[in-house]
Amino acid sequence: MSPPPKRIAFLVFPRLTFLDFVGAYDSLRRIPAMGIATEVTHRIIGTAGEIADESGLVLRPDSVYEDLASFDLLYVPGGLGTRALVDDERLIAYLRTWGPDRPLASVCTGALLLGRAGYLAGRRATTHHRAWDLLRPYCREVVTDRRIVDEGRIVTAGGVASSLDLGLYLVEKFWGAPARERIAAQMEYRGYSAV
Amino acid sequence: MSPPPKRIAFLVFPRLTFLDFVGAYDSLRRIPAMGIATEVTHRIIGTAGEIADESGLVLRPDSVYEDLASFDLLYVPGGLGTRALVDDERLIAYLRTWGPDRPLASVCTGALLLGRAGYLAGRRATTHHRAWDLLRPYCREVVTDRRIVDEGRIVTAGGVASSLDLGLYLVEKFWGAPARERIAAQMEYRGYSAV
Repeated sequence: MSPPPKRIAFLVFPRLTFLDFVGAYDSLRRIPAMGIATEVTHRIIGTAGEIADESGLVLRPDSVYEDLASFDLLYVPGGLGTRALVDDERLIAYLRTWGPDRPLASVCTGALLLGRAGYLAGRRATTHHRAWDLLRPYCREVVTDRRIVDEGRIVTAGGVASSLDLGLYLVEKFWGAPARERIAAQMEYRGYSAV
Repeated sequence: MSPPPKRIAFLVFPRLTFLDFVGAYDSLRRIPAMGIATEVTHRIIGTAGEIADESGLVLRPDSVYEDLASFDLLYVPGGLGTRALVDDERLIAYLRTWGPDRPLASVCTGALLLGRAGYLAGRRATTHHRAWDLLRPYCREVVTDRRIVDEGRIVTAGGVASSLDLGLYLVEKFWGAPARERIAAQMEYRGYSAV
């Protein structure tokens, strides 16, 4: 088990896939809500004051490009928006402020953003099965036969619904298997798998 | 297969469980997005202009208490907010405008709202495992050994993550098994089960 984070940042951006975010948000928000670690808090940080997903659902994040200095876990979802955002200098520079020491997680094509920011160089990673070719230039190896790839500080997951597995995987990584089992039971999620 | 809906209404309300909504939203929104039935549209209808979930996430719905006359599928998520909303006369009256003919679906404690509005009388239904006792007064039988209970016009599902199964179940019910399989593959959801 790694030292558990106390402040979690969820990044959201235009044309994200909402389930990429919510699938892990649901288990991680339960860490304090279910009394597993009541000191844990989170913030939903946007690239704009209102964020519309791939199908027009509008979310109002807690803040815009908030300073990441006080956080100790950054979660990056995917979505069609990543295709343009890999070339968005402001976003990539912002992701680089996270630096080399704190844990980072992505689901689906969120891995493309981590890759573009340089975090996957020399590492194994995964992403949505339709984006494997897009991810290859950024990493040592695209893993195509696992839902979750844990390279220690950086954990990447496959497409969309893998976000539920990733959230529970992070719960277990930081707070232990009993916490993961309790939260999965509360969520009535039966299919948990990292593989 | 029932006649497929063309206009889907997703209800959202204060202190909903966000994954209850998004788990089915993700598969249903893909019906037009993936070209399965391009005429299908949806609206996210709130009980207020801004909706905060159980953990503070803020959503801006497309409309507030929009007239339901033009819709042909209504989807009701659950969440801690349902405990108060079963006594909210405006919401219950609004749900009753749906009437006896059009299909209705709920996940998790959304079933309590359908029950309070009278839709479950004489029917079998299910809900989150911690809410079985709350649901009993509203229905003929609470089904405790299935994720999804299909009573023809009214389909109820179990807790939180059952929303992914419910969304895919509705896809199959209205657009057929090949559509369900295509969408599940795109979502990388492997654990689909109605049971």
